[in-house]
Amino acid sequence: MSEANRRMILNLVLSNAGSHRGAWRHPDTELDCIHDLKHFLRLARKAEAARLDSLFIADGLSIEVKAVQHGPIFGFEPLTLLSSIAAVTERIGLIATVSTSFTEPYNLARSFASLDHISGGRAGWNMVTTGVDRTAANFGLEHLPSHTERYEKAREFAEVVLKLWNSWEKDSLVQDRASGVYADADKVHDIRHEGKYFSVRGALNIMRSPQGRPLLVQAGSSEEGKALAAQYAELIFTIQRTFEEGRQFYDDIKSRTVQAGRSPDSLKVLPGLHVIVGATEEEAKKKADQLRELTSVERSLMSMSNMLGIDFSAFPLDAPFPQLPEPGEANAYQTFHRMIKAVVDRQPVTIREVLEKYWVGTGELNIAGTPEQVADVMEYWFRNSAADGFNVMPQLTFGDTDLFLDLVVPELQRRGLFPETYTGQTLRENLGLEPI
Amino acid sequence: MSEANRRMILNLVLSNAGSHRGAWRHPDTELDCIHDLKHFLRLARKAEAARLDSLFIADGLSIEVKAVQHGPIFGFEPLTLLSSIAAVTERIGLIATVSTSFTEPYNLARSFASLDHISGGRAGWNMVTTGVDRTAANFGLEHLPSHTERYEKAREFAEVVLKLWNSWEKDSLVQDRASGVYADADKVHDIRHEGKYFSVRGALNIMRSPQGRPLLVQAGSSEEGKALAAQYAELIFTIQRTFEEGRQFYDDIKSRTVQAGRSPDSLKVLPGLHVIVGATEEEAKKKADQLRELTSVERSLMSMSNMLGIDFSAFPLDAPFPQLPEPGEANAYQTFHRMIKAVVDRQPVTIREVLEKYWVGTGELNIAGTPEQVADVMEYWFRNSAADGFNVMPQLTFGDTDLFLDLVVPELQRRGLFPETYTGQTLRENLGLEPI
Repeated sequence: MSEANRRMILNLVLSNAGSHRGAWRHPDTELDCIHDLKHFLRLARKAEAARLDSLFIADGLSIEVKAVQHGPIFGFEPLTLLSSIAAVTERIGLIATVSTSFTEPYNLARSFASLDHISGGRAGWNMVTTGVDRTAANFGLEHLPSHTERYEKAREFAEVVLKLWNSWEKDSLVQDRASGVYADADKVHDIRHEGKYFSVRGALNIMRSPQGRPLLVQAGSSEEGKALAAQYAELIFTIQRTFEEGRQFYDDIKSRTVQAGRSPDSLKVLPGLHVIVGATEEEAKKKADQLRELTSVERSLMSMSNMLGIDFSAFPLDAPFPQLPEPGEANAYQTFHRMIKAVVDRQPVTIREVLEKYWVGTGELNIAGTPEQVADVMEYWFRNSAADGFNVMPQLTFGDTDLFLDLVVPELQRRGLFPETYTGQTLRENLGLEPI
Repeated sequence: MSEANRRMILNLVLSNAGSHRGAWRHPDTELDCIHDLKHFLRLARKAEAARLDSLFIADGLSIEVKAVQHGPIFGFEPLTLLSSIAAVTERIGLIATVSTSFTEPYNLARSFASLDHISGGRAGWNMVTTGVDRTAANFGLEHLPSHTERYEKAREFAEVVLKLWNSWEKDSLVQDRASGVYADADKVHDIRHEGKYFSVRGALNIMRSPQGRPLLVQAGSSEEGKALAAQYAELIFTIQRTFEEGRQFYDDIKSRTVQAGRSPDSLKVLPGLHVIVGATEEEAKKKADQLRELTSVERSLMSMSNMLGIDFSAFPLDAPFPQLPEPGEANAYQTFHRMIKAVVDRQPVTIREVLEKYWVGTGELNIAGTPEQVADVMEYWFRNSAADGFNVMPQLTFGDTDLFLDLVVPELQRRGLFPETYTGQTLRENLGLEPI
């Protein structure tokens, strides 16, 4: 894509109270409506009015009972929530996270095709493999399969889903009353997939969807995750701490995409942007301090335990951080593991220090600032090949979402970085991706 | 429940073009919108304006490629479609069919709890075990498990789902900003289910839903199906051919419910009502004739093949109907099997005769008539203990749905059989069921 045509992509990550763990305790959060559909419909309509590309919902398939006291970690199931939103929006994309480890490809292909029909071509599937070990116990397993096996299965899962989405050719619908031919049976195919993990006969029980197929999104940054994205995905969601790391990741993923025989423009790189917006820098910093004070250390510890696969509740907070195994040996979130391991191996640190300095987001894409300051960082990453856009995570849903949409988006539009209107009908068209 | 308080329950079964296989070819059917969400939103809003109790979506998890030419057998996935409808309705119940044979109880419990939250307490789950053998091949199996095994698994599945829905006690949400307690961890419980088919640790990753839990609906009339309904369900959907059979079924299911330790009023019996409405009887009969002429024999044959587990395409249409095995030996839809077996064993008949006289609905609840005639049959079944209400299946979506809602429902209201307004907020309240 020529630089002239290139434009920023912006997704809004929906969350009850905000991406910050302390957000629910902030006085601006309206606690009586954060488990109410109307709250999400309002956010969705507002994001669409600001012309955001997509709404994005993260997900997990387990909770730790002791974690529920620390905040609203549970939410609506993504496909049901986005289907509701589809009924009251027209153009914004709808991206749901669903794991490849605990569902059937036939059901997943069908549900996403259904969302694509319901929304007139706005569905996207964020494929994850699930890295939290305790989730396995909700699905009859003692432990998660290894990282390698999960990704091997994910690859076959994606392959089956793509075959199912393609099992109805274009123009298979005939609807000829006179001859009584509803669809052309010669254009609908059983897929007869026989693989290592799945055996699926097909065809899919829903016709080809408006986008040809829903978009594929990938959200892991391990080697296997990047390989999966380069092969299949149209968007990759990633967490990057520094511009330099972001630029390297961007280069890496683009060259992997080319190696996979695809155009580098066909896979868009979207780092996560944790954002706090204020009219002045002081106001933003004050809100950041407030949120920090409202955060429970136990909850952060629990989250770090889950993501690293180590139970930190057994250690005193001021004890030295334990040695972490080599990434290949840990069955957890590889990217976080590598990041924390780099810190821990560099110098002795306590568990508390890791939590405060590294765990609770302090990277360069954790921004608290004025609309101009936020836009400056975004512009820098975008213009200097570290991002094609961002998955925007307002730290405080009530407040930062509105400020981001009301002030940062127009600033990006003034700078010519972000479009003012939707030009296509489907998500694929609006993102300028090749038709399928 | 005293007779004075008893009132009819009415669900509308949503379908693209109508319950009749020829409906899509009828000139009143607007073919360009039957795969469009707007079509379903319009039906839903209209059904709510008429105060229907619920929308009901049947489902299947496979298609036969050669069947697609005969009509719109494929549809939106029920949970996504009903979630969309939830966003634009306020009171009408939303009942989705999902099979216990090809999904995980954790995912199912979570999705239905999510729909219950999204809709403010209007979700119901129609539990089926799937009787079409070819479906197995979409989920890695050569054949369906036996009827007995499917229902044994369904019973454990329902048990797990109920435990998960109960894993969050009432009043577990605290939301105390000052102390930082979001939910009371003592009121959220792992379920630690270890059974023959499922091992699920819990707790559910979504809080207790507005109805306490979604409604349970059951839709099979085999021995195992009736036992499952008597134990767990709040509504049972059944196909009955004659009033006498309907009355026996009603008696049977109510006494089973009592034997299961429940009030007979806690399980409502809803036979399916295939309906064609006309201003005059002649008009209705004419429409019925039209629809019959628009029906493809091959398609009916295919459907009968699937439901009886026999490939009839190998037989000439005018050949004698083959002997059917004893119900216990056939792994198919038991109730249909028994019904057809009774016909076939009584006297020699051809395949064509069975198709025309018995297969394509000709029972007493297949009505083509004036609003008064339709209401008469409904009143008779309702007043004489053969039905607590009906699952209404307009044979022609465009036309009969509107006529039923505009003319039959008001007629039932004039007769004091059906309420004029919703009195509760949740589906459970509106149906007058005990709170949970």
